[in-house]
Amino acid sequence: MTAPVPHVPKDPLFESRVRASFDKQQFMATIGARLLRVEPGEVDVEVATRGDLTQQHGFLHAGVVASAADSACGYAALSLMPAGAAVLSIEFKTNLLAPATGDRIVARGRVIRAGRTVTVCWGEVIAYASDNSERLVATMVATMMTVVDRGLVD
Amino acid sequence: MTAPVPHVPKDPLFESRVRASFDKQQFMATIGARLLRVEPGEVDVEVATRGDLTQQHGFLHAGVVASAADSACGYAALSLMPAGAAVLSIEFKTNLLAPATGDRIVARGRVIRAGRTVTVCWGEVIAYASDNSERLVATMVATMMTVVDRGLVD
Amino acid sequence: MTAPVPHVPKDPLFESRVRASFDKQQFMATIGARLLRVEPGEVDVEVATRGDLTQQHGFLHAGVVASAADSACGYAALSLMPAGAAVLSIEFKTNLLAPATGDRIVARGRVIRAGRTVTVCWGEVIAYASDNSERLVATMVATMMTVVDRGLVD
Amino acid sequence: MTAPVPHVPKDPLFESRVRASFDKQQFMATIGARLLRVEPGEVDVEVATRGDLTQQHGFLHAGVVASAADSACGYAALSLMPAGAAVLSIEFKTNLLAPATGDRIVARGRVIRAGRTVTVCWGEVIAYASDNSERLVATMVATMMTVVDRGLVD
Repeated sequence: MTAPVPHVPKDPLFESRVRASFDKQQFMATIGARLLRVEPGEVDVEVATRGDLTQQHGFLHAGVVASAADSACGYAALSLMPAGAAVLSIEFKTNLLAPATGDRIVARGRVIRAGRTVTVCWGEVIAYASDNSERLVATMVATMMTVVDRGLVD
Repeated sequence: MTAPVPHVPKDPLFESRVRASFDKQQFMATIGARLLRVEPGEVDVEVATRGDLTQQHGFLHAGVVASAADSACGYAALSLMPAGAAVLSIEFKTNLLAPATGDRIVARGRVIRAGRTVTVCWGEVIAYASDNSERLVATMVATMMTVVDRGLVD
Repeated sequence: MTAPVPHVPKDPLFESRVRASFDKQQFMATIGARLLRVEPGEVDVEVATRGDLTQQHGFLHAGVVASAADSACGYAALSLMPAGAAVLSIEFKTNLLAPATGDRIVARGRVIRAGRTVTVCWGEVIAYASDNSERLVATMVATMMTVVDRGLVD
Repeated sequence: MTAPVPHVPKDPLFESRVRASFDKQQFMATIGARLLRVEPGEVDVEVATRGDLTQQHGFLHAGVVASAADSACGYAALSLMPAGAAVLSIEFKTNLLAPATGDRIVARGRVIRAGRTVTVCWGEVIAYASDNSERLVATMVATMMTVVDRGLVD
C-alpha cells in the first residue's frame, strides 16, 4: 500500500475513549482479546491461541480472526472520530490467506480514508509462532460509519 | 434471489459428516452455537443472545454474527462436497444491516454455486425477538474451497 | 433469499428520475447498456454481447459485468431515495460464478435494506444464450450512500 | 500494509505472456486502458479520462475504475503463475473512496498471497490531476484462480 498519510485526531482524548469502549466489548473479553497500540487511525488487537477458539482442524476459527480484525478496524476508525461519536460496522470483507496457527494473532486496523460519515479501514492479521516468527494470515477491508446525535440506527 | 436449484449431495452421509465436523469446532461451543437444519447445500446455525457475546452497545458483536454465518456457509458448502473432502473459507464479506438484538440469531447458509474447487455461498442472519418476530440483521457472501488429498494448505 | 418486503418509493416520480440519471451515464451508452425495468427498489440493466467488451478468452470482461451490476444496484437504491437525493457507490463486491457467455446479460439490482444514509443492494447477473436459456454468472453486494444537500463528497 | 515479500516468477517470460494476454482484452482497448509496469506480482494499468467513460456526475464510472483494477490485479496474479496457466477472477471487492476525477487513473495490482490454486491481490487506484497531484480514489481486494489443464470452468 502507498505510504499512509498521518492522521490527526479530532479528539485529543481519543485513546482513553477507545480503551473505555473496548473494555465494554464483553465479547473481546470472552475471546481473551487485548487492546495493544492505540494511535490516531491505528489500533492493534491481540488474541492468544486457546483450544476453545478453534475450528475443526485445530486452527483459530475464522470468526475469531474476523472478530479481532473488525474490532481493530472499528477502533482505528473511532480514534479519528469527534468526541461523542459512536462507530458502527457497515460491512467488512476478510480474506483468509493461511491457517491461523501459532501462539497468538495480532490484528492491525488502519484507516485508509476518514470521511465525515464513512471511514474505510484496512486490517491485517499476523500470526506469531513460539519463535516469534510471523505470518500474514488474513486481511480485512472494513467500512465504518460515524453515528452522532441520532442513536445507533441509520 | 432467483429460486435456487435443488442440490444433489455427492455423499449420502453428508449430514453426519457435517454434524461431526461442527462438533469439532470448539469455538462454536464457546459461543453456544447450535447446528439446526442440515440439508444439501443449506445449513442453519443458531446462537442465543448472551451478555458475554456483546459489543460496546449491548448488541451481539459483529464477530459473533460473522462467526455463525461463516460456519453456516462453510457447512452448507461441505454438505455438497465428496466424502473425504475438507472445506476452507477463502474469504467472506458481511453486511451488517441492523443491530443484532433479540433472543437469538439464526444464520442460514445456502450454496449459490458449487464448483469442483470453489463453492460460493449466501448467508442471511435473522434475529428473533422474544415474540418470535424476525429481522434480517446481516448478510454474507462467502467463497469456500474444496480441499482433497493434499492437506489443508493451498 | 427470504421473500423481500415490498418497497414504497418516497418520490412518486422515481422512475423518470432514475431514467434521466441513467441517460447521463455516458459509460452505459459506451457499453451499449439499456435500462429495462425500473420498479421501487428493483432495476434491471441489459448489455448485449459485443466483441469490444470481451476479455482474453472471449467472454464478457468482468468489468463489464460489474459495471452493469453496479448501475443496476445504484439505480435500485436511487429509486427509493427522496427527490433531490443523489446516489454514490461506497463499495461493491462481485463473485464471478461462470464465464459470461451468450447473447446478452441482464443485471438485476434489488434493495435489501434501505436506510436513511446507507442502502444495501443485492445484484444478480444472468447470461442468456441464443435459445434464451439462462445462467447465473455473477452476484454483487453493493453499499450505496444517499447524498443530499452537501455535494457529492462525504 | 506490511512490506511485501519480493515475488519470484515461475515463468521467466512472464512479462511477454502478460502483455500478450492484455492485448487480447478487447474491452481494455475500448476504454483506452494501457498496460504500464509489469513486474513479478505487480502490474499497473492506466486509463485516461474520457467523456464516454463517465457516470451521471461526470466522474469516471465506478465500473471503469473496477475494470482497470480487476485487470491490474488479474495480471499481477498471472505474472506469478507457471507457463501455460490462465487466470480467472473469482471475486473482487472495491471501495470507492473519492470521485475519480482528473486527467487519468492508474490502477496498481499487487499480489498479497500466491498459492497453487488461489492468489489474492490488493489493488489501488490513483487519480492524477493535470498538475500531476495524486489521490487514492479506490481500493480493491481480488481473489484470482489459477486454471491449468482443464479449460476455463471450475
